[in-house]
Amino acid sequence: MIDPLPSTDGTAQALTMAANDEALTPLSFLERSARVHGSRVAVVDGEVGFTYAEWLIRAQGLAGHLRSLGVEPGERVAVLANNSEPVLLAHFAVPMAGADLVAINTRLGPHEVSYILEHSGARVALVGPQYRELVAQRPEVTQVVLDETFDEVVAAGRESYQGWHVADERASISVNYTSGTTGRPKGVVYHHRGAYLNALAMTLDHRVSAESTYLWTLPMFHCNGWTFPWATVAVGARNLCVPSIDPQQIWDLCSSGEVTHLCAAPTVLTMLAESEAARELPAPVRLVTAGAPPAPTIIQRMEDLGFFVDHVYGLTETYGPFTVNVTDRELHPRDDPDHYRVRARQGFANVAAGSVQVLDGDGREVPADGQSLGEVCMRGNVVMTGYLGDPEATEEAFAGGWFHSGDLAVVHEDGQIELRDRKKDLVISGGENISTVEVEQVVVQHPAVAECGVVSRPDQRWGEVPVAFVTLRRGASVTEAELREHCRERMAHFKCPAQFVVTDLPKTATGKILKAELRQRATEVAPGAVRLDS
Amino acid sequence: MIDPLPSTDGTAQALTMAANDEALTPLSFLERSARVHGSRVAVVDGEVGFTYAEWLIRAQGLAGHLRSLGVEPGERVAVLANNSEPVLLAHFAVPMAGADLVAINTRLGPHEVSYILEHSGARVALVGPQYRELVAQRPEVTQVVLDETFDEVVAAGRESYQGWHVADERASISVNYTSGTTGRPKGVVYHHRGAYLNALAMTLDHRVSAESTYLWTLPMFHCNGWTFPWATVAVGARNLCVPSIDPQQIWDLCSSGEVTHLCAAPTVLTMLAESEAARELPAPVRLVTAGAPPAPTIIQRMEDLGFFVDHVYGLTETYGPFTVNVTDRELHPRDDPDHYRVRARQGFANVAAGSVQVLDGDGREVPADGQSLGEVCMRGNVVMTGYLGDPEATEEAFAGGWFHSGDLAVVHEDGQIELRDRKKDLVISGGENISTVEVEQVVVQHPAVAECGVVSRPDQRWGEVPVAFVTLRRGASVTEAELREHCRERMAHFKCPAQFVVTDLPKTATGKILKAELRQRATEVAPGAVRLDS
Repeated sequence: MIDPLPSTDGTAQALTMAANDEALTPLSFLERSARVHGSRVAVVDGEVGFTYAEWLIRAQGLAGHLRSLGVEPGERVAVLANNSEPVLLAHFAVPMAGADLVAINTRLGPHEVSYILEHSGARVALVGPQYRELVAQRPEVTQVVLDETFDEVVAAGRESYQGWHVADERASISVNYTSGTTGRPKGVVYHHRGAYLNALAMTLDHRVSAESTYLWTLPMFHCNGWTFPWATVAVGARNLCVPSIDPQQIWDLCSSGEVTHLCAAPTVLTMLAESEAARELPAPVRLVTAGAPPAPTIIQRMEDLGFFVDHVYGLTETYGPFTVNVTDRELHPRDDPDHYRVRARQGFANVAAGSVQVLDGDGREVPADGQSLGEVCMRGNVVMTGYLGDPEATEEAFAGGWFHSGDLAVVHEDGQIELRDRKKDLVISGGENISTVEVEQVVVQHPAVAECGVVSRPDQRWGEVPVAFVTLRRGASVTEAELREHCRERMAHFKCPAQFVVTDLPKTATGKILKAELRQRATEVAPGAVRLDS
Repeated sequence: MIDPLPSTDGTAQALTMAANDEALTPLSFLERSARVHGSRVAVVDGEVGFTYAEWLIRAQGLAGHLRSLGVEPGERVAVLANNSEPVLLAHFAVPMAGADLVAINTRLGPHEVSYILEHSGARVALVGPQYRELVAQRPEVTQVVLDETFDEVVAAGRESYQGWHVADERASISVNYTSGTTGRPKGVVYHHRGAYLNALAMTLDHRVSAESTYLWTLPMFHCNGWTFPWATVAVGARNLCVPSIDPQQIWDLCSSGEVTHLCAAPTVLTMLAESEAARELPAPVRLVTAGAPPAPTIIQRMEDLGFFVDHVYGLTETYGPFTVNVTDRELHPRDDPDHYRVRARQGFANVAAGSVQVLDGDGREVPADGQSLGEVCMRGNVVMTGYLGDPEATEEAFAGGWFHSGDLAVVHEDGQIELRDRKKDLVISGGENISTVEVEQVVVQHPAVAECGVVSRPDQRWGEVPVAFVTLRRGASVTEAELREHCRERMAHFKCPAQFVVTDLPKTATGKILKAELRQRATEVAPGAVRLDS
């Protein structure tokens, strides 16, 4: 029965039959958790909650309803709504209907929303009641309104549910539009395989399990919530939805032990640390931060308050988190003065992501000296499929077989990368590169400073000079001379901001400081003394 | 720049470029851990230890040496050695040379070893010094002896190292020969994709992390150590190799806190529980058990001693663990009398495995009533590629698009499957099915019994009757009448063993009771009283 002389060509027996090959898709996570964790709570949103068994049925109902509205496999379905159970549900129901999810940033203006609806070709949208008019700009889009009628619609939809089948794990699952700081938003296509793999990496890196409760502070429209809708469901964790960021509520939830995990941009960390509700947590809560480079100071402040901070980094084009900080705690224990500086590095590619390299202009890796600047480039399964309908931009982004992030970084001796700037934000002063991130991290070390954004201002003598915009901590005050002294003690004089401006920092919907706007303001501020208090 | 009217065909933009597609392979785990956890200890074996940075270099050296011996991509390289650092290393070095690893069971006889060497076509073998003669049966096989010369060989090999490239994630990575209880051993082919996915599932299910130390009690030749060589390296855990199972040493390592995880068959659990060195652990150690259905009694005994038992199930054909027990601890807390009975169920498919179903003779799922017997069938990415050089057996195993395990099971209301027997071990008495697993679990509830194996014996009146072979606990004694009484109180009389025999249980190299041998013995034992003490 056994052939005694088998072929020695290892690939020759690679039989692929139905029994031993299955597309990787996060949809399998929901099917499994409904079976394995059926009586566990999948999601809580205000007064409403669903077990995993109930929630699968609900996802099937929404998928069926979408099909009954004429949604065909390969189409795109938009969502414009605040964080809520239906938006989380859509991360499963839309692909279960064979369509791609287009989760639109709720803070975009009418023009951008209209553009994304048109560009994505969505014919159906799930819409929060307050966004109906915004979507009504495009009358060809059928609205499924997320109001008190939604439950009935979902219940009725089950009749139209036809099951799902992912024939190709590299087929798209979602399209996420970039913030479009340069030009119009671009539609970043994710596939099932990438979503599956990055979700598993999130559960591993951040130790999400069936015992976890994940608080939805991060907008779900941001890179599909950094793939956490899929990660939490993979392990049967509980999702807790809140419609907006309320520091008092977050502190209450974290200190009561109800929440074990949350994600937030560094700016939200500052907001939490500055909140009057800030208090020491009785048990550690895992806080995953990304979206902008967090200063060592804010990581330390959050950990002093009892959070455990996981620092990750990525872009819309990399399904959100691609790298993760891994600090050697034997070399750098918490009481090492360098500890939080090392924790502020963006780290290494996560276990499923692929590779990250910092490449110079000739496509060579920069030396791991903590100084040589290069562009962060990524490669692997959690790099986007491409930009929707834009092969030219895709080709440009993938030049040389790497995804070019547009972020500038150094590589440290420990192998971790550390961001220095967006390519376009770098300040070049007297021929020297100045990393605005580095300057910002020095400025926020000053005890009076809560947050800081540094940008370039054209300068006749030096070409450009850095200007610092700062927000102060509650009740704090400081003089410009003190800030200047603080900076001069800590870095080369040419890097010190030529001016300090106290202001509220303008931010994107995802909490990133709008540097373009600050650059504009920097040209408008009259050089000279500015009153520095909060 | 952006096409305002993109195609609405979701798959049309599925560009696959080098930047966004990478083969899934556990080889990436070692590359990453050498970078991320470079200064952490990868493996300790006696006096020898290597950090991840050092160990990658060592793997490259062995891979290079294999190439210098003429090993070509697609070939197979055999290993015949006790658990040790070189065997663990081979799990990376052999595929890094492009070849498939054939880890041979060290307890096989000369005839079987010779057969496997010939059938696999291996031209090179890594050989423990005590197995040289065994391999020398096949003079065409070049031996790399794992003695004091090995380090030099590895160091010199780096010059010949050419890097690795996995072009197709479904290409084979290893071949594991079945124990061959029915006919000659069959070579089960694993691929990179399955090894990668099951390894990640192991880290998730058993919470293996960079802080873990994994003790190598499980033979690495058993389904590639249930994919733990790849799982531990994926997260940067520490591997601790021991050449053989010494209960005193295991208890010392577990109670000193040096070890956080180990895998062992239920028979090893019994050996540990029965050991004079048994003691309560100061901190829980995670114990993953599979290889035979563990009785509720032994799970409870191990947990009473301070282990946390993870119960998994699978076969050589499913990369080892395919299912995992997930017990609802709200419904069945530890003080629930049913708790350990539920923990003894084989559970659900793990998050990466795929699907498991219990199918009746017509290929329909049996009802989830805890009673209806069917065959355990699996489907997914951690089902073997096929049997090496044996398309007929492969086709038969995959009939109907499912892998047929040959194991009989029921499905409980909670959705977990529970094994009742190997198809060939089932006792059919007076037309009634008797699950030998069920009978064994009742017998071992008796306080005098350490372990039990039940088999059928031909019987003129009933067709077959069950006969129980038991080993007693240290110092215990019991009469046959007492055991009979114990059984009759707990199950239908027709299921009670017709005879009890005290004996050492014959076992396979992986700790499975050799039921074929017991069946033979059952026909030889004179019916009647047997002295029952230890």
